[in-house]
Amino acid sequence: GILSAILRLLHPDRPLAGRSALVTAGPTHEPIDPVRYIANRSSGTQGYAIAAALAAAGADVTLVSGPTTLPDPAGMRTVRVETAHDMLEACRAALPCDIAVCTAAVADWHVAPAPQKIKKTAGAPPPVLQLAPNPDILATLSQPSPTRPGLVIGFAAETEHVVPHATAKRLRKGCDWIVANDVSPGTGIMGGTENEVCLIDATGCEHWPRLDKTQVARKLVARIATFLQTPHPNPE
Amino acid sequence: GILSAILRLLHPDRPLAGRSALVTAGPTHEPIDPVRYIANRSSGTQGYAIAAALAAAGADVTLVSGPTTLPDPAGMRTVRVETAHDMLEACRAALPCDIAVCTAAVADWHVAPAPQKIKKTAGAPPPVLQLAPNPDILATLSQPSPTRPGLVIGFAAETEHVVPHATAKRLRKGCDWIVANDVSPGTGIMGGTENEVCLIDATGCEHWPRLDKTQVARKLVARIATFLQTPHPNPE
Repeated sequence: GILSAILRLLHPDRPLAGRSALVTAGPTHEPIDPVRYIANRSSGTQGYAIAAALAAAGADVTLVSGPTTLPDPAGMRTVRVETAHDMLEACRAALPCDIAVCTAAVADWHVAPAPQKIKKTAGAPPPVLQLAPNPDILATLSQPSPTRPGLVIGFAAETEHVVPHATAKRLRKGCDWIVANDVSPGTGIMGGTENEVCLIDATGCEHWPRLDKTQVARKLVARIATFLQTPHPNPE
Repeated sequence: GILSAILRLLHPDRPLAGRSALVTAGPTHEPIDPVRYIANRSSGTQGYAIAAALAAAGADVTLVSGPTTLPDPAGMRTVRVETAHDMLEACRAALPCDIAVCTAAVADWHVAPAPQKIKKTAGAPPPVLQLAPNPDILATLSQPSPTRPGLVIGFAAETEHVVPHATAKRLRKGCDWIVANDVSPGTGIMGGTENEVCLIDATGCEHWPRLDKTQVARKLVARIATFLQTPHPNPE
């Protein structure tokens, strides 16, 4: 709008002034019973860094975070959730917004949780965990709708065939960009302080050097600001 | 031995001087694939508090800890492990010892882990996680053997029928004492700072009031010291 354009003219160091952003971060935990759950190795570091960089660039940020050991960042709203289902609800509540950056490592599946702790029974075979699909938050946010963010960015954590997997994921989910990285244990990326990513859009794939996660965040936010300043068929 | 008896006479405030103790704490993580794992809600707080109380009472303590957010406590050896299998190996390496306190919430089962991240495939049914039994660390340490600790204490985290379940667990595992508690979500115990436990031995069950976890630890260590000072058929 006009107000946000004026804000950006007045504050050239805050290119996202007047814009609103939703960032998801961290893992989700899917309960198996009252004490056990399925988790993943996402620390939330990259997502929190992107939320901080968006806020530093002037955006009004809502961070929807799965369970992490990171403190709530200053200068934004942080909503804590546990499961993929709860994360989707918190994202929906944050719409409409201009930018959505889905960094969370959302569990693809949940278990129908047992109401009491599953007991190990001598002689009985181990239980089988029957999984059921979770809601797909990135695909849901990417669907054409009056509240679709103008720019939806997904993340792809892969352990093999990173670029082809992530390129296919961009088309399948319907998001605008995918930030892809290799999270194989040998890379030290999952849980680490550095990241080495490819930025994939409709025109192809750009490989960034290995950078500190805060530098990856700033570089991504600079790209977001440039994109939003450029006229697009359906920018906002 | 004579040396440890002299140490205890010289330091009445350190009733476990000359004794060695093994404490397990925290959850275990059982990998599903390179990024996903099965976890549980154990924070390690109660086990770390018991390890600290044992060290304060003069014991030489080895803490074998699953993944927690707690720092390594001062005044003891801390061995960090991830899976139940690794925890058992670290416990075996700590034998012989006089006292074993198994507070860890060891996963009963593991998954045969996939070498690459399991992909969600459109149209395909969700994967089934086939579980396999983990080694039973408490039962293994409790087995009659020349290196069996003189006092083996297990923990039972229950969500229903706490005392009957824990009493049966003591007999099944072959340990000397069980500290039982109710970890139902409503109690706030798992992940919280307080605990309300029953101490179960061959003679019955003693219900302790709700206490700070450091107080539960000190009370348990006082019981351990009294037990070891009393002659038993097979004390050491």
